[in-house]
Amino acid sequence: MSQYQSIKEQAYEANMELPRLGLVLFTFGNVSVVDRKAGVFAIKPSGVPYEYLTPEQIVIVDFDANVVEGAQRPSSDTKTHAVLYKHWESIGGIVHTHSTYATAWAQAQRDIPIFGTTHADYLTVDIPCAPPMSDEMIEGNYEHQTGFQIMDCFKERNLSYKEVEMMLVGNHAPFTWGKTAEKAVFNAAVLEEVARMALLTEQIRPDAPRLKETLIRKHFERKHGPDAYYGQSNSKI
Amino acid sequence: MSQYQSIKEQAYEANMELPRLGLVLFTFGNVSVVDRKAGVFAIKPSGVPYEYLTPEQIVIVDFDANVVEGAQRPSSDTKTHAVLYKHWESIGGIVHTHSTYATAWAQAQRDIPIFGTTHADYLTVDIPCAPPMSDEMIEGNYEHQTGFQIMDCFKERNLSYKEVEMMLVGNHAPFTWGKTAEKAVFNAAVLEEVARMALLTEQIRPDAPRLKETLIRKHFERKHGPDAYYGQSNSKI
Amino acid sequence: MSQYQSIKEQAYEANMELPRLGLVLFTFGNVSVVDRKAGVFAIKPSGVPYEYLTPEQIVIVDFDANVVEGAQRPSSDTKTHAVLYKHWESIGGIVHTHSTYATAWAQAQRDIPIFGTTHADYLTVDIPCAPPMSDEMIEGNYEHQTGFQIMDCFKERNLSYKEVEMMLVGNHAPFTWGKTAEKAVFNAAVLEEVARMALLTEQIRPDAPRLKETLIRKHFERKHGPDAYYGQSNSKI
Amino acid sequence: MSQYQSIKEQAYEANMELPRLGLVLFTFGNVSVVDRKAGVFAIKPSGVPYEYLTPEQIVIVDFDANVVEGAQRPSSDTKTHAVLYKHWESIGGIVHTHSTYATAWAQAQRDIPIFGTTHADYLTVDIPCAPPMSDEMIEGNYEHQTGFQIMDCFKERNLSYKEVEMMLVGNHAPFTWGKTAEKAVFNAAVLEEVARMALLTEQIRPDAPRLKETLIRKHFERKHGPDAYYGQSNSKI
Repeated sequence: MSQYQSIKEQAYEANMELPRLGLVLFTFGNVSVVDRKAGVFAIKPSGVPYEYLTPEQIVIVDFDANVVEGAQRPSSDTKTHAVLYKHWESIGGIVHTHSTYATAWAQAQRDIPIFGTTHADYLTVDIPCAPPMSDEMIEGNYEHQTGFQIMDCFKERNLSYKEVEMMLVGNHAPFTWGKTAEKAVFNAAVLEEVARMALLTEQIRPDAPRLKETLIRKHFERKHGPDAYYGQSNSKI
Repeated sequence: MSQYQSIKEQAYEANMELPRLGLVLFTFGNVSVVDRKAGVFAIKPSGVPYEYLTPEQIVIVDFDANVVEGAQRPSSDTKTHAVLYKHWESIGGIVHTHSTYATAWAQAQRDIPIFGTTHADYLTVDIPCAPPMSDEMIEGNYEHQTGFQIMDCFKERNLSYKEVEMMLVGNHAPFTWGKTAEKAVFNAAVLEEVARMALLTEQIRPDAPRLKETLIRKHFERKHGPDAYYGQSNSKI
Repeated sequence: MSQYQSIKEQAYEANMELPRLGLVLFTFGNVSVVDRKAGVFAIKPSGVPYEYLTPEQIVIVDFDANVVEGAQRPSSDTKTHAVLYKHWESIGGIVHTHSTYATAWAQAQRDIPIFGTTHADYLTVDIPCAPPMSDEMIEGNYEHQTGFQIMDCFKERNLSYKEVEMMLVGNHAPFTWGKTAEKAVFNAAVLEEVARMALLTEQIRPDAPRLKETLIRKHFERKHGPDAYYGQSNSKI
Repeated sequence: MSQYQSIKEQAYEANMELPRLGLVLFTFGNVSVVDRKAGVFAIKPSGVPYEYLTPEQIVIVDFDANVVEGAQRPSSDTKTHAVLYKHWESIGGIVHTHSTYATAWAQAQRDIPIFGTTHADYLTVDIPCAPPMSDEMIEGNYEHQTGFQIMDCFKERNLSYKEVEMMLVGNHAPFTWGKTAEKAVFNAAVLEEVARMALLTEQIRPDAPRLKETLIRKHFERKHGPDAYYGQSNSKI
């Protein structure tokens, strides 16, 4: 049995959640799970339909995107995952989807405005949309550079990946992450729902105002602050 | 066996209806059921996924939001439920969701206009949207104050909670109630559908007029007036 | 066994198709089936949830809306069905729903423009929306008058109920019919899909033109003309 | 056993995928599979509901649209399929649906703009919408002429059917194709999702710009170029 059996199974389970949550059509998505001690992560093989996926097919890759174990070719987005794991040292899982509403905002190259408490329960800022990459970055090592495009966006805006666990890459699609792959998948579903509600809100009222700061703080802190009182004390998410 | 077994089971069943009706993502919702004689209500524990919820986990709370029975922490919205039960003496159940379309109207801070008979079958006025709370209310006892924000909205507009069993809290999300938790859940689904139809109606015709008074009266009275002829005489809803 | 057993079972089956096709929430719809020889029709009882409905509960009513057989109260829309069966002598079944998109067009009080061949496969004109009824009609025998509102709309526009088997009642919702209840249910689903496509078409292009006459004729006639070549010769629909 | 048993079963399986993927209501779609050596193709019978369809009912037709084997009448769109197989010599399967979003773009008579990488993963141009046919073409051999309308659109725009495997017929609905029927069905689902995302993108930002050329090239080539690195080397799609 592989020494990476545990993260392979976690990656398998987390990947299988994407179609159950309606976040992917065919193979348009991938989840990875990291093993920090071993310095590797487990990721979905490229282009394998979910109904045929097995834990054995999950590929083990190091932080320079070299395949360590596995007969399949890893996800074409593997280099993006590798860059993020290498530089963002406390994340445990990453999700990439082309979920419908989040992708539409990415295609529109707009941040998703914070309109309500559903959004504020998870983050205190608009969901950032990184601009499309420069031609040099695209024509170079594309997926590798996508990781830097994500990190550069966070640096420029002075955001912490520990507090904001979701974003959009302009013209492309969303990425989410978290301390575990389970949390990253949860964030992918929250992002899709928040993206849908924001579009509907603007349709109902084109000049809808952003949520006021006191409500933003209150909702975020009741879930995530030092005196959080949402959920059970032993909850994983 | 708990003396509150009956309301625990009712609360469990009513909570489980929310995902079946497509009204909640993950744990974004809660239902409570009151026992007026005992002066307590049964409510969902905070942050517990529906697939793992059991009747035993339901928490018993009094009208001052003190936990009377139960090992789990109650819903973070418990104080709002407590205020409403304390002041609105004929309601038997309360539902809070973040259902997509109703929440989008709440985020737009607009009442839902009465455009058709689907709406008029249940209430004779636009579905009210309370304004976002003042900073003082938010920074104080937030969920407790949310209950007063709901009641203040009804007082200002001279509405009766016995006739209007649904509303929106601006920037937040919908609340519904009824003589039973079953009816409150029914109202939550009706509200979501009416919210969706109203958005589509404005998209088809931005200046769509409100329903005229004669039709509003007729439809409401055939279901709820003294000579109601909708449904069976022994119907619970 | 009831002499009306056959239409009771047909009405039961046709009613049960509505939730399967996603055309109703809770009990917001009804289907009836006529027995022309006996001068009666079978209709859903009022307000009975689909999951509890049985063929035995179906109510038998004559063309003046008197109950002939059945322990339950018939649908509150029974008088509308009765008027249509009495005056439109070749229809075999009627459906009333509050399906989302068709109801939104009714609430907007607009005909559904014929934008494409999906629409033209079933009718050659815009789907008519009758204006809301006069106050006199509403305050009188409401559901009875609804039947006349439908027929008046067809007379004014010189439409034949044999060629146009679907319409909207302004501010209210759709009605469809056909030679059989099965066909009337089919029409209800077609109407909902055509209503949805028409809304999306206007969103993509606000000044989208109506389909040109040659295409309207061609598509309708290949399904319904004397030389129709769509479907099998023994097809029921 | 029929000498065409293999393509009959392939056509049956591919047709059954359409309702599973949510691409058809009732019988509004058809898939065909070609046998180039035998000079025939297998196509769905006209108007047969998917739940009653069997492999034995699939009809075998030659490239002049003559029935070679089968008791049922073939799809009313058979002549369009025949023309395309005759002139586009490397396609193995064709799909026609009235899927909701793609049909709405066809009704709006607009090309679907390339807004993001989801689109660019499959083609490098806007998805073409052929203009509605001339009255002469419609009143002549309609479905036969539809095939030429599709091919003329590709000629005028200098597109290759080998690179662009999907398009819209104005006022009508989409057609897709591919080396296999399985691929053609895959393309029909991709088209519907891309059509939906493009509509949402314009709703979020009416002046959303097209994807820039470097990103178009990069995404297409990582899936389809000589150095493609998406998917497994033995993948069928």
